[in-house]
Amino acid sequence: MTREPAPFTTEDYAARMAVAARTAADAGLAGLLIAPGPDLTHLTGYRPTAETERLTLLVLAVGREPVLVVPALEAPDAAKAPGAAALALRDWTDGKNPYALTAPLLDAAGRFGVSDNTWALHLLGLQQELPATSYAPLTDALPMLRAVKDGRELERLAAAGAAADAAYAQILHVPFAGRRESEVAEDLAALLRAHGHSQVDFTVVGSGPNGANPHHEAGERVIRHGDMIVLDFGGLRYGYGSDISRTVHVGEPTAEEQRVHDVVREAQQAGVAAVRPGVSCQEVDRAARAVITGFGYGDRFIHRTGHGIGVTTHEPPYMVEGEEQPLVPGMCFSVEPGIYLPGRFGVRIEDIVTVTEDGGRRLNNAPRELAIVE
Amino acid sequence: MTREPAPFTTEDYAARMAVAARTAADAGLAGLLIAPGPDLTHLTGYRPTAETERLTLLVLAVGREPVLVVPALEAPDAAKAPGAAALALRDWTDGKNPYALTAPLLDAAGRFGVSDNTWALHLLGLQQELPATSYAPLTDALPMLRAVKDGRELERLAAAGAAADAAYAQILHVPFAGRRESEVAEDLAALLRAHGHSQVDFTVVGSGPNGANPHHEAGERVIRHGDMIVLDFGGLRYGYGSDISRTVHVGEPTAEEQRVHDVVREAQQAGVAAVRPGVSCQEVDRAARAVITGFGYGDRFIHRTGHGIGVTTHEPPYMVEGEEQPLVPGMCFSVEPGIYLPGRFGVRIEDIVTVTEDGGRRLNNAPRELAIVE
Repeated sequence: MTREPAPFTTEDYAARMAVAARTAADAGLAGLLIAPGPDLTHLTGYRPTAETERLTLLVLAVGREPVLVVPALEAPDAAKAPGAAALALRDWTDGKNPYALTAPLLDAAGRFGVSDNTWALHLLGLQQELPATSYAPLTDALPMLRAVKDGRELERLAAAGAAADAAYAQILHVPFAGRRESEVAEDLAALLRAHGHSQVDFTVVGSGPNGANPHHEAGERVIRHGDMIVLDFGGLRYGYGSDISRTVHVGEPTAEEQRVHDVVREAQQAGVAAVRPGVSCQEVDRAARAVITGFGYGDRFIHRTGHGIGVTTHEPPYMVEGEEQPLVPGMCFSVEPGIYLPGRFGVRIEDIVTVTEDGGRRLNNAPRELAIVE
Repeated sequence: MTREPAPFTTEDYAARMAVAARTAADAGLAGLLIAPGPDLTHLTGYRPTAETERLTLLVLAVGREPVLVVPALEAPDAAKAPGAAALALRDWTDGKNPYALTAPLLDAAGRFGVSDNTWALHLLGLQQELPATSYAPLTDALPMLRAVKDGRELERLAAAGAAADAAYAQILHVPFAGRRESEVAEDLAALLRAHGHSQVDFTVVGSGPNGANPHHEAGERVIRHGDMIVLDFGGLRYGYGSDISRTVHVGEPTAEEQRVHDVVREAQQAGVAAVRPGVSCQEVDRAARAVITGFGYGDRFIHRTGHGIGVTTHEPPYMVEGEEQPLVPGMCFSVEPGIYLPGRFGVRIEDIVTVTEDGGRRLNNAPRELAIVE
């Protein structure tokens, strides 16, 4: 698990682009427009150093060769991407209109799937150049484009999960009481890096009342004896994501704290147990939510149950009411119910789960009981 | 200059929002839609930790109170932003349609300016909800919304520039020959932080042939005696950007290397000298380019001459052919011509310049001659 996986090759990226174009055609689209970010990483291996006002766009028009439109001064970098040999590079220089350059690559009356994170600047530029085209965000048009992972992707996700588990095992031995949340967050980041992460995306340390804000990161609050602490951390290893949450307690918990933790743990188990092919995403959310609601905390579980993970730590599919997408073997996502008591404390427990042929398999296996720290 | 400036207040942000709404009305727009990123930072002081598929959007509808639409779980953070007291927060929970929530805030047949970096996902969501609306990217609709800096912003930009100058002065004393570009890049990042930068955005170290690729960052190449090296680095101090380029040489340069450097230096001086109110952006580009073309290197100056700087290190106005925007006192931008000889070396010299009542003033004052390093 700690051996670095072999890199994806030009052939891998060519195959992914072919699948994407075929899927687009099956969905009645004239093609896909892919912006820098996770979609482009997945399809070409190309990661521009920044997303900017200069247009970079992969055009996967159905029945045509893939074309990557890039600013001239980024063309040398783009040409080095592992997928570059499977596409045509078309560069443009400052002062030229990149949308006019791109327009001939598109069916002028076609409907296109477009990366969610494409800048409005670029979409409006294309809409103006080709007024008869129409567009759908990839999340709506082909939400599952990156959702089903193959064996080599799963290997990377499992390696990232194992590293996060190892970081959690070690953080239990650092001192908590008397230190700032931000200091524990730095410990978590260092542990993720020590366990092979190339990038740390988030290190939430929500102590006491801060734990009741699910989007609190880590601040200057000094942790005290008696605090509940939500830990939620992750990043990228071998290009794929980790994301784990555990809740710990400084010293012995009260009966209420233990009870709330027990409820969340039971909800998380119910969510994982609901995972199997054919079940809809919203059913995973419902399974976890039903437990929390049953114990009277329904209005204190204020977010969805989970999100997909892959070349990002946050992507489709979403485990949320209204998401009827059926689960498919190879999908990977978080199951992370929580209870948040404003002004007091919060509890969240999260594992990454992958859908197998007959159920779900956790990619995080760190103990889920309420750990006591010092 | 090293004393930390007083933070911007709720009143400052209220005033900026009022100016933005008035400017939008003057431009015939029904309002502005502002996404997380530099526009939102400028108008509200709110910086969400990540730009995601969850809609966060500031709606500045002409004649109405500003409204910030936020995901419920980010509402506590948004409420802490310094501009929050000058607007209404409207939150939405996972599973709800945030575009339906936003639609009643907009004139259903209006034309809106929208932040360039708004995700296509969100723009398409609004277009679907309100098919009679139309949109223009802020860069086109109100390109100068953030371009003219007031005195307190200039103070911050000057402080950032002085810090970059100081970092440059110190980098000349580190060893270059025998070390990797990436090691010198780490030195640059450490120096920027030591001089008060809270964020390092880029540390380009382009040695020898790598300098001929203007978008090369810093790699594993080992620097050698005889190399020309392009250094281009910057980030944020007190929330505002620095960006400086200088070219150095390991040991004595050849006559050709010195000549190319002299040409770029003369071009940079010509670009700066062209800066004064009323002159168009493209004239700054032309002034610098004319020098390089005059010496026969016109086809080796392969990018525009400059870009604006403020709460980002890269924003309008752009000094580029075709940009007819006249310069206005308070604008800040880079002047950074270069010559790139493929396979051999590159030279770039860059200062941040602000437009004064009667000319331009450099915010970088580090020596511009070809420095010899070891």
